[in-house]
Amino acid sequence: MMELKANERIDDLHRRKYKIIQNPKTFCFGMDAVLLSGFAQVKEGEHVLDLGTGTGIIPILLEAKTKGKHFIGLEIQEDSVEMATRSVHLNGLDDKVSIVQGDIKEADSLFPLSSFDVVTSNPPYMQGQSGLKNRFQPKTIARHEVLCTLEDVIKTASSLVKVGGRFYMVHRPHRLPEIMVLLKQYKCEPKRMRFVHPYVHKEPNMILIESVRHGKPLLKVEPPLIVYEEVGQYTDEIYNIYGYATRPSDVSKGVVQ
Amino acid sequence: MMELKANERIDDLHRRKYKIIQNPKTFCFGMDAVLLSGFAQVKEGEHVLDLGTGTGIIPILLEAKTKGKHFIGLEIQEDSVEMATRSVHLNGLDDKVSIVQGDIKEADSLFPLSSFDVVTSNPPYMQGQSGLKNRFQPKTIARHEVLCTLEDVIKTASSLVKVGGRFYMVHRPHRLPEIMVLLKQYKCEPKRMRFVHPYVHKEPNMILIESVRHGKPLLKVEPPLIVYEEVGQYTDEIYNIYGYATRPSDVSKGVVQ
Repeated sequence: MMELKANERIDDLHRRKYKIIQNPKTFCFGMDAVLLSGFAQVKEGEHVLDLGTGTGIIPILLEAKTKGKHFIGLEIQEDSVEMATRSVHLNGLDDKVSIVQGDIKEADSLFPLSSFDVVTSNPPYMQGQSGLKNRFQPKTIARHEVLCTLEDVIKTASSLVKVGGRFYMVHRPHRLPEIMVLLKQYKCEPKRMRFVHPYVHKEPNMILIESVRHGKPLLKVEPPLIVYEEVGQYTDEIYNIYGYATRPSDVSKGVVQ
Repeated sequence: MMELKANERIDDLHRRKYKIIQNPKTFCFGMDAVLLSGFAQVKEGEHVLDLGTGTGIIPILLEAKTKGKHFIGLEIQEDSVEMATRSVHLNGLDDKVSIVQGDIKEADSLFPLSSFDVVTSNPPYMQGQSGLKNRFQPKTIARHEVLCTLEDVIKTASSLVKVGGRFYMVHRPHRLPEIMVLLKQYKCEPKRMRFVHPYVHKEPNMILIESVRHGKPLLKVEPPLIVYEEVGQYTDEIYNIYGYATRPSDVSKGVVQ
């Protein structure tokens, strides 16, 4: 039995009996990371890099769901790197998943340029740090553009993904115009996009975007991804993405949030 | 009784008893124009310009639905200008709606710059004229970028709408990245967007976009607009936009298409 640190807990990922260590006092992964891992397509033998991996949720879920060969999670915060590394070890994935400490802004000196088949990112969504308290708290760094901007993430993704390789990102709909402009500017052509709506008649609160480096312009917008059928009741698609074979009567709050 | 030309017919618009003349041999307006007129917001006393007005459907519907002061439809094709002018006259709107013949690419010499509160457009969607037969047929001109490109439309809209004024466009989702880049390039900030899906679980086939000249970046993506509840059965929202008080048992094919 692995020893947990103060405030840590272990959550079941409902995939190959994988588990993940989280610390609710610092940061727990959200539905966005899970939906991104369902949206991203990784083919057999591919090499994957996740920018700003946090708990390591995206590389661990992608390892569980796909036949990719190797997965790297890049993370700047030392405590997150250490905890994610323990999650990798807990699942016996040391050969398949590596957690690397480093800054997204300098990632093009950490890895060979144009070397990954797939890059993923669930970056901080929020702009503007004026008036932010606790700028360097782990939650703030994960949610706000304190240590890297949207442009940093897209620029790095574009420099590290192969020509023809895919970059998957989850973000907020209200920043879509800027996202499109930056993706085009850095030669990542948006090819597939899906909006996530809490309910069918509600505004979307997430977007999932696949872009292809030097891809040909033609965007496919997919049908809406609806989270709730009714209050407290996820849609079948959400249960599927979360890996439940059938609808559970009691969904662990640690995983479905 | 007004005399119609060969192949022309008169359709009921279900708004203030307005009617419109169309010629199925050349071009009839589609659902996109009707949905754009439902999406566009025109306030009391405002001046509106529609780029590429065709039958005049958008200015006539907007005159019916809003308290705008004056509406101009710009159209390059002489026959369409003449037919749209007869529709305006048929509805007794000669003081409120003007149909002007001219080229979108030269519209900034036809009207004062930065003078309209609102600009609308349902432009040709299709790119690439290689192999196109009948390049100068009315239907081809309305559907393909033969006489003007997306960039021409956005550039002209931006030059004619006031600072802070609104530009409404309907287009195809697959060109969204390019649309975003061009809107931003010409200082029309996308502020509100809605996808139109034939069915709730289908991909969208239209986008409605409101941009504001020199607006502050923050896009609101609205809930999906669903066209059909089931085969042959429109949703209540579509019936509302079309102006039916109640669901008709027999929908005129001339209007709801």
